[in-house]
Amino acid sequence: MNRILEVSTRSGTAQFRPCTEEEMRWGGRSFIAHHLQREVEPGCDPLGPRNRLIIAHGLLGDTKLTTAGRFSIGGKSPLTGGVKEANVGGSCGRRMARLGIKAIILKDTPENRTPRILLVRNDGAELIDAPDLAGKETSATLAYLRDRFGAKTGVLAIGPAGEQTLTAALVATTDDAGVQLRVAGRGGLGAIMGSKGIKGIVVDEAGAVPPEPADGEMLTRASREVARILREDPKTENRHNFGTPAVLSLCNALGILPTRNFSSGTFEHADAISGEMVAELIDQRGGKEGEAKRGLPCVQGCVIACSNIFAGPSGKTTVASLQYENIALLGSNCDIGDIDAIAELNDLCNQVGIDAIDGGAAIGVAMEAGIIEFGDAEGAKDLLRQVGQGTPLGKVIGSGVVTTARVLGVCRVPATKGQAMPAYDPRSLKGIGVTYAMSAMGADHTAGNALETAKAIDPRGREGQVPSSFKLQVRGAILDSLGVCLFIRPAFVKDPSLAAQLLNGRYGWNWEYRDVQRMGIDCLTAEREFGEAAGISETDNDVPEFMRSEPLPPHNTVFDLSREEMSKIWDTVLPDDIF
Amino acid sequence: MNRILEVSTRSGTAQFRPCTEEEMRWGGRSFIAHHLQREVEPGCDPLGPRNRLIIAHGLLGDTKLTTAGRFSIGGKSPLTGGVKEANVGGSCGRRMARLGIKAIILKDTPENRTPRILLVRNDGAELIDAPDLAGKETSATLAYLRDRFGAKTGVLAIGPAGEQTLTAALVATTDDAGVQLRVAGRGGLGAIMGSKGIKGIVVDEAGAVPPEPADGEMLTRASREVARILREDPKTENRHNFGTPAVLSLCNALGILPTRNFSSGTFEHADAISGEMVAELIDQRGGKEGEAKRGLPCVQGCVIACSNIFAGPSGKTTVASLQYENIALLGSNCDIGDIDAIAELNDLCNQVGIDAIDGGAAIGVAMEAGIIEFGDAEGAKDLLRQVGQGTPLGKVIGSGVVTTARVLGVCRVPATKGQAMPAYDPRSLKGIGVTYAMSAMGADHTAGNALETAKAIDPRGREGQVPSSFKLQVRGAILDSLGVCLFIRPAFVKDPSLAAQLLNGRYGWNWEYRDVQRMGIDCLTAEREFGEAAGISETDNDVPEFMRSEPLPPHNTVFDLSREEMSKIWDTVLPDDIF
Repeated sequence: MNRILEVSTRSGTAQFRPCTEEEMRWGGRSFIAHHLQREVEPGCDPLGPRNRLIIAHGLLGDTKLTTAGRFSIGGKSPLTGGVKEANVGGSCGRRMARLGIKAIILKDTPENRTPRILLVRNDGAELIDAPDLAGKETSATLAYLRDRFGAKTGVLAIGPAGEQTLTAALVATTDDAGVQLRVAGRGGLGAIMGSKGIKGIVVDEAGAVPPEPADGEMLTRASREVARILREDPKTENRHNFGTPAVLSLCNALGILPTRNFSSGTFEHADAISGEMVAELIDQRGGKEGEAKRGLPCVQGCVIACSNIFAGPSGKTTVASLQYENIALLGSNCDIGDIDAIAELNDLCNQVGIDAIDGGAAIGVAMEAGIIEFGDAEGAKDLLRQVGQGTPLGKVIGSGVVTTARVLGVCRVPATKGQAMPAYDPRSLKGIGVTYAMSAMGADHTAGNALETAKAIDPRGREGQVPSSFKLQVRGAILDSLGVCLFIRPAFVKDPSLAAQLLNGRYGWNWEYRDVQRMGIDCLTAEREFGEAAGISETDNDVPEFMRSEPLPPHNTVFDLSREEMSKIWDTVLPDDIF
Repeated sequence: MNRILEVSTRSGTAQFRPCTEEEMRWGGRSFIAHHLQREVEPGCDPLGPRNRLIIAHGLLGDTKLTTAGRFSIGGKSPLTGGVKEANVGGSCGRRMARLGIKAIILKDTPENRTPRILLVRNDGAELIDAPDLAGKETSATLAYLRDRFGAKTGVLAIGPAGEQTLTAALVATTDDAGVQLRVAGRGGLGAIMGSKGIKGIVVDEAGAVPPEPADGEMLTRASREVARILREDPKTENRHNFGTPAVLSLCNALGILPTRNFSSGTFEHADAISGEMVAELIDQRGGKEGEAKRGLPCVQGCVIACSNIFAGPSGKTTVASLQYENIALLGSNCDIGDIDAIAELNDLCNQVGIDAIDGGAAIGVAMEAGIIEFGDAEGAKDLLRQVGQGTPLGKVIGSGVVTTARVLGVCRVPATKGQAMPAYDPRSLKGIGVTYAMSAMGADHTAGNALETAKAIDPRGREGQVPSSFKLQVRGAILDSLGVCLFIRPAFVKDPSLAAQLLNGRYGWNWEYRDVQRMGIDCLTAEREFGEAAGISETDNDVPEFMRSEPLPPHNTVFDLSREEMSKIWDTVLPDDIF
């Protein structure tokens, strides 16, 4: 059985309905794209009653495939004005999938925003008043939900920023153990949840009868093959050992590491905040007494297991998991070279409930404006605490980098389509600039990260970047719709037919590789069309003005792909294999 | 001779060049529209080096025609992202015109924004460092300029808000006597001036040889006819006596007076803030001892003379001139029924240098957010003082209503295209809603105010509103391009050929009424095309969401013209006479 849970936050009703045949073909990101396009008025106020918050697991969310169980949260973004899908690990997606709930859709807005909890069970769902949760930090809220409803539930929550409907607000969840805080950070989705007065969501899978796969044997065989290939791939070991922070040294070497509000591509203290240093400190501070660990999975059964628990010198956890983007945006981008301070800043972002990318970029801009000095970690912590307290300056920072820059009078704004740029400066990695400019998601590395093409395609050259970005974007849309991690790619490179085999095994379809590719393209098209109808124009398909005129040290590059050149992206003819 | 002064704020050079033949046909608003369309990259950052601030007098700016001398300031607006033209009285326009300077164009941005003064003389122009002016209030700056460069100069200045590049910042000027502060308030043009590091502009007409009209006799005859008709028109006397505040009682009666952040169309204390009350108080407080006066011209030689000097109970000036929009936005819209408090708020807006419409709307939204209570005049004054001080909350308010609403989490935002709505709620005056939605200027009553059609067309009905708005918009574009006041209209109603006669007398053209109309339409088209290229989409052509769903007391109307219906506006076939 596959069903949708529709919740009216106005009337307080929560009802299941069966999926339509069409909806059965959608999952995760593609569910969000197609649902928005069909059901949501593109011009609506993202924080008004006509927008929806959609939580959807991927097409393979109820399988044992490695990395599957990641799920998507989406809606019309208050930052970009277009479709936003943020993808996250943790235990919630699989639990939804085992309950046969393809998506939870929050509709309308309540009379008042006194916090409520949405409790989802096998036999029904209800909204529970929870006024005491008002203003509670994210981890405390998640812990409260697990305490009250049991540690075997999947939980989602927003922090104080989401309650204030600040437009950089995140939605958080946890891993099975309740240790890692995993976030759907981008696009301000926490503000949508806040606008609907929902502080937390609990998915209790007691009594669930997980759907049977159509061809269990085929599914198992393909799943095992994916895991086998991944285990043998050398990238897997590197990721297991160093996680995403591994790329910091590479980005510094390429000259694309955001430094002092994107004014340099290398950072003097890169070694002190590198993936190697993070691993070393975790090993030092972990062991029997300490809580620090690395090589953890974010979803059960992942063979890569690239997450970590980062601890301070005392051995007590600072933040879990500490990732590359956040180190760069809160670290080098703010001229902060102290990894412990960065980890604390990351935790503060999580606890007040804002995206560390938009938050770090906003702090960088506030430093450029002279609100605090570059390098002032204590000042940065204070700014983030103010987000939670709801001071005027905190509200500005919590609204993300574009609003912060506008209010503070800064013209160097590292953002596209209203959303802060992740940790790859596009002046010296031009392929990702194409993604930032052209993706309906705005500046989002997971929408199509050209870092991995930097060996095959000159990262500072224009040649080949447009079709390459398209390929990466389609691939991202496929993986986000399957509900698997982007790091699963090596398996699909080795055997492009595996994705179709997995889907056919699960659903009894008769898909070929081309059908999988079509699913990805259709998802991107729906996202783009929704964005255009929502008012995203061709003019918005660009990198920030200063990146076209201000050379980026050390290579002194500017971004020089023209808008016209980039606009041809949708005409790209894809090769048979895009993985 | 007609010439253009081009100033590079980067290199510090200021040079005259002759007008092209094409430019000779443009004036004021149409100069701005056509210049932007030809010379400015539509996608540029409004506060970056590629935008320009354009100051242009109207086509009849150097004539003695009554009301002529009003001039236009414009650029790509940091609020709307499209063309913004703000029209203003005072003495600067005529002085520019007498010098034969059709436009002053500020280009580029400086290395740093230490305040400078642009001094314009007959034989050249220069930039003068003026670091001492940093942070100075608007009136003090204007007084400084008149003191230093002589009272016979035209002066322009920004306040602290403009220096901070806050997006609701205004540009101010004075009348000949230096008593009235006249503002080009809308669209954040003061932020553009601030981004260019120009704190003040001085136009010294010493040595000017005003251009000779081509047919002085025709020009004089037509000018006299305009003045004669105006003097005989009953509206002129009413305007002379009560000024723009005269319409407050009418708007209250129609149920369109913005009250408590546009939640009601009538205000309990309307009588206490009406035009009649303003006139009565001015008469009481004026006389021999007091400074209060009414029936003042904003440009020399105006036969209407609808401005005033408003004084407090002591007889000392509070603000000059006190106008309807500001009374409504800072008064009823904030639930403030004390006209003295409103006048002080208006003066504060002027002194810190923000548009009182966007500022008043922002305060209304801050009240809805609970930052201060509705009706709290002292709290509102404090918010405005904070704009000048540059506190975080002040910077938010100074960024206008849309940013204020976003940061404070308010969904009821009375704005279109990023700009606050003037004092006519479109739910019960639907024609102005069409203008707000469709004009490239965003919510701007001077772009096409349907108030005057409220007798001929049911203001709460949909019938006829779209073509009527178009007619009003074309008319506005014509008058703003001539450099005359909107209140000159009765003369053109009586004799539609007068506008062409005036232009032919001045320039030796051979225009007919139809050519004048074409000039207005071409101006609107250029504005619309620039906006579209800049990223203003069809989705932006709408009133705020809440005005379509939330009924407005007392008539309980919603705005119900569809976007599709309104989108036909550009197909309107105009009658021969649109005045």
